Amino acid sequence: MRNILLRLAYDGTSYHGFQRQPAIHGQTIQGELERAWEKLFAEEIGVVTAGRTDTGVHAAGQVVNFFTEARIPCHKIPKAMNSILPYDIRILEAEVVSAEFNARKSAKWKRYDYRIDNSPIPDVFSRLYYLHEPLPLNIEHMQKAAACMEGRHNFKAFAAAGSSARSFVRTLYRCKVSQQNQHVIVTCIGDGFLYNMVRIITGTLLYVGKGKIKPEEIPEIIQSKDRVRAGITAAARGLTLTYVNYDGSAPTDIFSDLL
Amino acid sequence: MRNILLRLAYDGTSYHGFQRQPAIHGQTIQGELERAWEKLFAEEIGVVTAGRTDTGVHAAGQVVNFFTEARIPCHKIPKAMNSILPYDIRILEAEVVSAEFNARKSAKWKRYDYRIDNSPIPDVFSRLYYLHEPLPLNIEHMQKAAACMEGRHNFKAFAAAGSSARSFVRTLYRCKVSQQNQHVIVTCIGDGFLYNMVRIITGTLLYVGKGKIKPEEIPEIIQSKDRVRAGITAAARGLTLTYVNYDGSAPTDIFSDLL
Repeated sequence: MRNILLRLAYDGTSYHGFQRQPAIHGQTIQGELERAWEKLFAEEIGVVTAGRTDTGVHAAGQVVNFFTEARIPCHKIPKAMNSILPYDIRILEAEVVSAEFNARKSAKWKRYDYRIDNSPIPDVFSRLYYLHEPLPLNIEHMQKAAACMEGRHNFKAFAAAGSSARSFVRTLYRCKVSQQNQHVIVTCIGDGFLYNMVRIITGTLLYVGKGKIKPEEIPEIIQSKDRVRAGITAAARGLTLTYVNYDGSAPTDIFSDLL
Repeated sequence: MRNILLRLAYDGTSYHGFQRQPAIHGQTIQGELERAWEKLFAEEIGVVTAGRTDTGVHAAGQVVNFFTEARIPCHKIPKAMNSILPYDIRILEAEVVSAEFNARKSAKWKRYDYRIDNSPIPDVFSRLYYLHEPLPLNIEHMQKAAACMEGRHNFKAFAAAGSSARSFVRTLYRCKVSQQNQHVIVTCIGDGFLYNMVRIITGTLLYVGKGKIKPEEIPEIIQSKDRVRAGITAAARGLTLTYVNYDGSAPTDIFSDLL
């Protein structure tokens, strides 16, 4: 029995999120992965994921693991699975990991990027991966507000209402707003994320950008633990799970854009 | 009666090309534009296009013109049409032009870009706009071959067989191969293009990149006027009509990437 780790990318546009669901809810990433494996090796597997992305959310560096008795050499797994999987899901790498490895529990930190197309007329070629926001944004205010999000906080104000987490305390190592031409990116790196957390942080930063919330109000909003004080949940399509880290190296060691 | 010019962008993935066709053939860009206008102003228009893009071909800077008696101020046309058009078609600009202006006949030159994803595993987020070519490409050879394409030639070898053009002579001002990380772009700028010409030039350059054709053979292939000597027609999805010029300024005045 080997424990296999897969890194994969997917365009979440056509999927009802990561997690397998009864067929009537439509296709899921987990469902496609497990179906492809069964087709190849006539073996039922149960994949564990680093982060269950929602309906419409994308991944550039999702990680899953599963146990298998199939004897295929590990380096041949990506090509084999990609020959079966739909074109909007691609396996990037496979490796054998120790039996203790668990894609969710072993993760040290994750990086999410939320992409915003801040031009008057949306770019047709980015429309599936960017939120379109035609109003002018005060980027400096957004950056100040983002800096206030960083640190170890109770993020209950930034979790979907009714969230069943045992604790709302998470550490956000980085919360950064960057701009390149008409594109604005909100990057969040943390040890864990509550349900809809990155989308609510982004919705709040967009309120800051439009002057509906002042940057100075952020610490107060965090302290309030009141979901109603934060901004709206930004649309799923702008969000991408970019990377999951397992060795604990610093984010800046891996991403030069964070330096 | 005003003559209106529109600049527009579209993702051609879901369309059966630009030109209006009987409904059984599916949606076309022209059909969508004319339908949107009729819905807004109860007026039937006939749009003339700078270049009839094929099924699956995209446009970042397509140009059309049409005559109208509708009294909407010109600067309000993009927003009005975009409120009706599907999200994969966006009107970027509108202006009133002289009665003599014809989007096709008045064009001085057009720029097409053919995008290739030259990575072992295709990027899921580019898959609709890039051709995936996993084999290594000799970029230097492709660049040499591209230079041989430039100039005023009879391009019959690079026109779809059975093409009904009166003359096959066209001037290709620029034919350039550029590489950035895993992306290879073939840029063609010319005074006119034969049916499938950019896709056949790209297919031929890909043969050169893979060593099936030598760069030195290109002049010979052009002279042969024999479609069979050139490479295959590269898939539509990689092709974008980027820009149409009407004032005759030099391509290098407009595109810094060509300097």
